Amino acid sequence: MKAEHINPFLSSVASTFHTMLGTEVRRGPMSLRDPAKKSYPISGVIGLTGKAVGTVVINLSEEVALKAASALLMDDIRVINDDVLDAVGELANVIAGQAKAELEQYELSVSLPNVVTGDNHRVRFPSSSSPVCVPFETDLGPLQLEVGFETEV
Amino acid sequence: MKAEHINPFLSSVASTFHTMLGTEVRRGPMSLRDPAKKSYPISGVIGLTGKAVGTVVINLSEEVALKAASALLMDDIRVINDDVLDAVGELANVIAGQAKAELEQYELSVSLPNVVTGDNHRVRFPSSSSPVCVPFETDLGPLQLEVGFETEV
Repeated sequence: MKAEHINPFLSSVASTFHTMLGTEVRRGPMSLRDPAKKSYPISGVIGLTGKAVGTVVINLSEEVALKAASALLMDDIRVINDDVLDAVGELANVIAGQAKAELEQYELSVSLPNVVTGDNHRVRFPSSSSPVCVPFETDLGPLQLEVGFETEV
Repeated sequence: MKAEHINPFLSSVASTFHTMLGTEVRRGPMSLRDPAKKSYPISGVIGLTGKAVGTVVINLSEEVALKAASALLMDDIRVINDDVLDAVGELANVIAGQAKAELEQYELSVSLPNVVTGDNHRVRFPSSSSPVCVPFETDLGPLQLEVGFETEV
Protein backbone atom coordinates (compact mmCIF):
# COMPACT_ATOMS: atom_id res chain seq x y z
CA MET A 1 0.00 0.00 0.00
CA LYS A 2 1.22 3.44 -0.89
CA ALA A 3 1.22 6.46 1.41
CA GLU A 4 -1.20 8.26 -0.89
CA HIS A 5 -3.73 5.55 -0.15
CA ILE A 6 -3.31 5.43 3.61
CA ASN A 7 -3.04 9.16 4.24
CA PRO A 8 -6.70 9.92 3.49
CA PHE A 9 -7.67 7.45 6.22
CA LEU A 10 -5.33 9.02 8.75
CA SER A 11 -6.66 12.51 8.17
CA SER A 12 -10.18 11.13 8.19
CA VAL A 13 -9.67 9.64 11.68
CA ALA A 14 -8.48 13.02 12.92
CA SER A 15 -11.31 15.00 11.36
CA THR A 16 -13.97 12.46 12.37
CA PHE A 17 -12.90 12.48 16.01
CA HIS A 18 -12.63 16.25 15.97
CA THR A 19 -16.01 16.84 14.35
CA MET A 20 -18.10 14.03 15.81
CA LEU A 21 -16.53 13.61 19.24
CA GLY A 22 -14.91 16.97 19.88
CA THR A 23 -11.57 15.36 20.67
CA GLU A 24 -8.13 15.41 19.11
CA VAL A 25 -6.08 12.39 18.15
CA ARG A 26 -2.31 11.84 18.18
CA ARG A 27 -0.97 9.45 15.62
CA GLY A 28 1.60 6.80 16.47
CA PRO A 29 4.00 5.05 14.10
CA MET A 30 2.57 3.11 11.17
CA SER A 31 3.57 -0.53 10.85
CA LEU A 32 2.66 -3.54 8.82
CA ARG A 33 -0.21 -5.19 10.62
CA ASP A 34 0.96 -8.09 12.73
CA PRO A 35 -1.81 -10.70 12.72
CA ALA A 36 -0.38 -12.30 15.86
CA LYS A 37 -0.67 -9.10 17.88
CA LYS A 38 -3.64 -8.91 20.21
CA SER A 39 -6.31 -6.45 19.14
CA TYR A 40 -8.76 -4.45 21.19
CA PRO A 41 -12.05 -6.33 21.67
CA ILE A 42 -14.26 -4.20 19.37
CA SER A 43 -13.74 -3.74 15.64
CA GLY A 44 -15.79 -1.68 13.22
CA VAL A 45 -15.17 -3.22 9.80
CA ILE A 46 -15.93 -1.59 6.46
CA GLY A 47 -15.38 -2.99 2.99
CA LEU A 48 -14.45 -0.75 0.09
CA THR A 49 -15.15 -1.75 -3.48
CA GLY A 50 -14.66 -0.07 -6.84
CA LYS A 51 -11.55 0.19 -8.97
CA ALA A 52 -9.77 -0.97 -5.83
CA VAL A 53 -11.02 -3.31 -3.12
CA GLY A 54 -10.00 -3.02 0.47
CA THR A 55 -10.97 -3.13 4.10
CA VAL A 56 -10.83 -0.58 6.89
CA VAL A 57 -10.98 -1.59 10.54
CA ILE A 58 -11.26 0.73 13.50
CA ASN A 59 -10.25 -1.29 16.53
CA LEU A 60 -10.91 -0.05 20.04
CA SER A 61 -11.32 -0.97 23.66
CA GLU A 62 -14.68 -1.17 25.44
CA GLU A 63 -13.74 1.98 27.35
CA VAL A 64 -13.11 3.99 24.20
CA ALA A 65 -16.27 2.61 22.57
CA LEU A 66 -18.36 3.59 25.61
CA LYS A 67 -16.88 7.08 25.75
CA ALA A 68 -17.26 7.61 22.01
CA ALA A 69 -20.87 6.40 22.03
CA SER A 70 -21.64 8.54 25.08
CA ALA A 71 -20.24 11.59 23.29
CA LEU A 72 -22.05 10.81 20.05
CA LEU A 73 -25.39 10.14 21.70
CA MET A 74 -24.96 12.78 24.39
CA ASP A 75 -25.71 10.21 27.05
CA ASP A 76 -23.75 8.45 29.77
CA ILE A 77 -23.56 4.87 28.54
CA ARG A 78 -21.92 2.38 30.89
CA VAL A 79 -22.43 -0.98 29.17
CA ILE A 80 -21.76 -2.21 25.66
CA ASN A 81 -25.18 -2.33 24.04
CA ASP A 82 -26.59 -2.05 20.53
CA ASP A 83 -26.32 1.74 20.61
CA VAL A 84 -22.60 1.53 21.38
CA LEU A 85 -21.98 -0.98 18.60
CA ASP A 86 -24.00 1.11 16.16
CA ALA A 87 -21.88 4.11 17.16
CA VAL A 88 -18.68 2.17 16.43
CA GLY A 89 -20.08 1.16 13.06
CA GLU A 90 -21.02 4.75 12.36
CA LEU A 91 -17.51 5.95 13.24
CA ALA A 92 -16.04 3.39 10.85
CA ASN A 93 -18.55 4.46 8.23
CA VAL A 94 -17.71 8.15 8.50
CA ILE A 95 -13.95 7.49 8.50
CA ALA A 96 -14.21 5.30 5.40
CA GLY A 97 -16.62 7.70 3.72
CA GLN A 98 -14.38 10.73 4.15
CA ALA A 99 -11.30 8.86 2.97
CA LYS A 100 -13.22 7.56 -0.03
CA ALA A 101 -13.96 11.11 -1.12
CA GLU A 102 -10.22 11.79 -1.28
CA LEU A 103 -9.63 8.64 -3.32
CA GLU A 104 -12.20 9.49 -5.97
CA GLN A 105 -10.06 8.07 -8.78
CA TYR A 106 -10.95 4.60 -7.45
CA GLU A 107 -14.70 5.25 -7.46
CA LEU A 108 -15.01 3.46 -4.15
CA SER A 109 -18.26 2.35 -2.58
CA VAL A 110 -18.51 1.69 1.12
CA SER A 111 -20.15 -1.46 2.49
CA LEU A 112 -22.32 -1.61 5.58
CA PRO A 113 -20.20 -1.51 8.71
CA ASN A 114 -19.94 -4.76 10.58
CA VAL A 115 -19.00 -4.58 14.20
CA VAL A 116 -17.13 -7.56 15.54
CA THR A 117 -16.80 -8.15 19.26
CA GLY A 118 -15.01 -10.69 21.39
CA ASP A 119 -11.93 -10.54 23.60
CA ASN A 120 -9.86 -12.78 21.41
CA HIS A 121 -11.36 -11.98 18.03
CA ARG A 122 -9.16 -11.34 15.03
CA VAL A 123 -10.21 -9.72 11.79
CA ARG A 124 -8.03 -11.23 9.14
CA PHE A 125 -7.17 -9.43 5.95
CA PRO A 126 -6.74 -11.51 2.80
CA SER A 127 -3.21 -12.66 2.06
CA SER A 128 -3.31 -10.64 -1.14
CA SER A 129 -3.50 -7.37 0.81
CA SER A 130 -0.70 -5.83 2.84
CA PRO A 131 -2.60 -4.22 5.68
CA VAL A 132 -1.02 -1.49 7.75
CA CYS A 133 -1.81 -0.60 11.33
CA VAL A 134 -1.68 2.88 12.83
CA PRO A 135 -2.14 3.44 16.56
CA PHE A 136 -3.80 6.61 17.81
CA GLU A 137 -3.92 8.15 21.23
CA THR A 138 -7.09 10.10 21.91
CA ASP A 139 -8.57 11.82 24.94
CA LEU A 140 -10.95 8.86 25.12
CA GLY A 141 -8.10 6.33 25.15
CA PRO A 142 -6.08 4.39 22.59
CA LEU A 143 -7.35 2.85 19.39
CA GLN A 144 -5.95 1.64 16.13
CA LEU A 145 -6.80 1.90 12.48
CA GLU A 146 -6.07 -0.92 10.06
CA VAL A 147 -6.29 -0.50 6.30
CA GLY A 148 -5.53 -2.97 3.54
CA PHE A 149 -6.06 -2.92 -0.19
CA GLU A 150 -5.43 -5.63 -2.68
CA THR A 151 -1.92 -5.31 -4.01
CA GLU A 152 -2.86 -4.13 -7.48
CA VAL A 153 -3.85 -0.76 -5.97
CA MET B 1 -35.47 -8.96 3.61
CA LYS B 2 -37.53 -10.60 0.90
CA ALA B 3 -37.27 -14.22 -0.19
CA GLU B 4 -36.17 -13.13 -3.65
CA HIS B 5 -33.09 -11.60 -2.06
CA ILE B 6 -32.13 -14.49 0.19
CA ASN B 7 -32.83 -17.31 -2.26
CA PRO B 8 -29.85 -16.56 -4.53
CA PHE B 9 -27.56 -16.96 -1.51
CA LEU B 10 -29.10 -20.28 -0.54
CA SER B 11 -28.72 -21.74 -4.01
CA SER B 12 -25.22 -20.31 -4.15
CA VAL B 13 -24.20 -22.16 -0.97
CA ALA B 14 -25.46 -25.41 -2.48
CA SER B 15 -23.76 -24.92 -5.84
CA THR B 16 -20.51 -23.67 -4.27
CA PHE B 17 -20.23 -26.68 -1.98
CA HIS B 18 -21.15 -29.02 -4.82
CA THR B 19 -18.71 -27.53 -7.32
CA MET B 20 -15.78 -26.56 -5.10
CA LEU B 21 -15.95 -29.21 -2.40
CA GLY B 22 -17.82 -32.06 -4.07
CA THR B 23 -20.32 -32.25 -1.23
CA GLU B 24 -24.03 -31.70 -0.89
CA VAL B 25 -25.72 -29.45 1.64
CA ARG B 26 -29.08 -29.82 3.40
CA ARG B 27 -30.79 -26.60 4.34
CA GLY B 28 -32.35 -26.08 7.75
CA PRO B 29 -35.10 -23.62 8.65
CA MET B 30 -34.46 -19.92 8.07
CA SER B 31 -34.87 -17.62 11.05
CA LEU B 32 -34.20 -14.04 11.98
CA ARG B 33 -30.63 -13.91 13.18
CA ASP B 34 -30.46 -13.96 16.96
CA PRO B 35 -27.45 -11.85 18.00
CA ALA B 36 -27.40 -13.55 21.40
CA LYS B 37 -26.98 -17.00 19.91
CA LYS B 38 -23.48 -18.40 19.96
CA SER B 39 -21.83 -18.62 16.56
CA TYR B 40 -19.21 -20.99 15.26
CA PRO B 41 -15.67 -19.64 15.80
CA ILE B 42 -14.83 -18.79 12.18
CA SER B 43 -16.70 -16.28 10.01
CA GLY B 44 -16.05 -15.34 6.40
CA VAL B 45 -17.53 -11.86 6.00
CA ILE B 46 -18.27 -10.15 2.68
CA GLY B 47 -19.75 -6.72 2.11
CA LEU B 48 -22.01 -6.02 -0.84
CA THR B 49 -22.45 -2.55 -2.23
CA GLY B 50 -24.39 -1.10 -5.13
CA LYS B 51 -28.03 -0.15 -5.40
CA ALA B 52 -28.36 -2.14 -2.19
CA VAL B 53 -25.84 -2.61 0.59
CA GLY B 54 -25.58 -5.72 2.66
CA THR B 55 -23.40 -8.27 4.34
CA VAL B 56 -23.01 -12.01 3.93
CA VAL B 57 -21.42 -14.16 6.60
CA ILE B 58 -20.52 -17.82 6.30
CA ASN B 59 -20.03 -19.08 9.82
CA LEU B 60 -18.41 -22.43 10.52
CA SER B 61 -16.59 -24.60 13.00
CA GLU B 62 -12.86 -25.24 12.92
CA GLU B 63 -13.61 -28.81 11.87
CA VAL B 64 -15.65 -27.73 8.85
CA ALA B 65 -13.08 -25.08 7.93
CA LEU B 66 -10.27 -27.65 8.05
CA LYS B 67 -12.19 -30.16 5.97
CA ALA B 68 -13.25 -27.53 3.44
CA ALA B 69 -9.71 -26.19 3.10
CA SER B 70 -8.31 -29.71 2.81
CA ALA B 71 -10.77 -30.47 0.00
CA LEU B 72 -10.10 -27.16 -1.76
CA LEU B 73 -6.33 -27.43 -1.53
CA MET B 74 -6.24 -31.20 -2.00
CA ASP B 75 -4.17 -31.54 1.12
CA ASP B 76 -4.70 -32.90 4.63
CA ILE B 77 -4.68 -29.79 6.80
CA ARG B 78 -4.91 -30.35 10.55
CA VAL B 79 -4.44 -26.88 12.04
CA ILE B 80 -6.07 -23.53 11.36
CA ASN B 81 -3.49 -21.60 9.38
CA ASP B 82 -3.48 -18.84 6.79
CA ASP B 83 -4.35 -21.28 4.01
CA VAL B 84 -7.46 -22.38 5.90
CA LEU B 85 -8.58 -18.81 6.56
CA ASP B 86 -7.95 -17.87 2.93
CA ALA B 87 -10.07 -20.84 1.91
CA VAL B 88 -12.93 -19.66 4.15
CA GLY B 89 -12.65 -16.19 2.63
CA GLU B 90 -12.67 -17.70 -0.83
CA LEU B 91 -15.78 -19.73 -0.06
CA ALA B 92 -17.53 -16.57 1.16
CA ASN B 93 -16.32 -14.78 -1.95
CA VAL B 94 -17.66 -17.39 -4.34
CA ILE B 95 -21.00 -17.65 -2.51
CA ALA B 96 -21.45 -13.87 -2.58
CA GLY B 97 -20.24 -13.63 -6.17
CA GLN B 98 -22.67 -16.21 -7.48
CA ALA B 99 -25.59 -14.70 -5.59
CA LYS B 100 -24.66 -11.25 -6.86
CA ALA B 101 -24.98 -12.48 -10.44
CA GLU B 102 -28.60 -13.43 -9.75
CA LEU B 103 -29.32 -10.03 -8.21
CA GLU B 104 -28.03 -8.06 -11.17
CA GLN B 105 -30.71 -5.42 -10.83
CA TYR B 106 -28.83 -4.14 -7.75
CA GLU B 107 -25.50 -3.87 -9.58
CA LEU B 108 -23.72 -5.27 -6.54
CA SER B 109 -19.99 -5.21 -5.99
CA VAL B 110 -18.34 -7.61 -3.59
CA SER B 111 -15.80 -6.44 -1.00
CA LEU B 112 -12.70 -8.33 0.01
CA PRO B 113 -13.58 -11.18 2.33
CA ASN B 114 -12.59 -10.68 5.93
CA VAL B 115 -12.23 -13.75 8.03
CA VAL B 116 -12.96 -13.28 11.71
CA THR B 117 -11.83 -15.85 14.25
CA GLY B 118 -12.27 -16.22 17.98
CA ASP B 119 -14.35 -18.58 20.11
CA ASN B 120 -16.63 -15.87 21.40
CA HIS B 121 -16.58 -13.50 18.48
CA ARG B 122 -19.75 -11.98 17.13
CA VAL B 123 -20.23 -10.28 13.79
CA ARG B 124 -22.91 -7.71 14.32
CA PHE B 125 -25.13 -6.51 11.52
CA PRO B 126 -26.26 -2.88 11.60
CA SER B 127 -29.57 -2.21 13.33
CA SER B 128 -30.95 -0.97 10.02
CA SER B 129 -30.66 -4.44 8.49
CA SER B 130 -32.80 -7.45 9.38
CA PRO B 131 -30.35 -10.28 8.97
CA VAL B 132 -31.56 -13.82 8.54
CA CYS B 133 -29.73 -16.98 9.47
CA VAL B 134 -29.96 -20.30 7.65
CA PRO B 135 -28.31 -23.44 9.05
CA PHE B 136 -26.91 -26.05 6.69
CA GLU B 137 -25.88 -29.62 7.29
CA THR B 138 -23.07 -30.78 5.04
CA ASP B 139 -20.95 -33.91 4.81
CA LEU B 140 -18.17 -31.82 6.36
CA GLY B 141 -20.33 -30.79 9.32
CA PRO B 142 -22.75 -27.99 10.15
CA LEU B 143 -22.41 -24.33 9.17
CA GLN B 144 -24.64 -21.34 8.87
CA LEU B 145 -25.19 -18.54 6.41
CA GLU B 146 -26.20 -15.07 7.55
CA VAL B 147 -27.40 -12.40 5.14
CA GLY B 148 -28.62 -8.89 5.84
CA PHE B 149 -29.47 -5.96 3.61
CA GLU B 150 -30.45 -2.49 4.59
CA THR B 151 -34.20 -2.31 4.86
CA GLU B 152 -34.78 -0.20 1.75
CA VAL B 153 -33.93 -3.23 -0.39
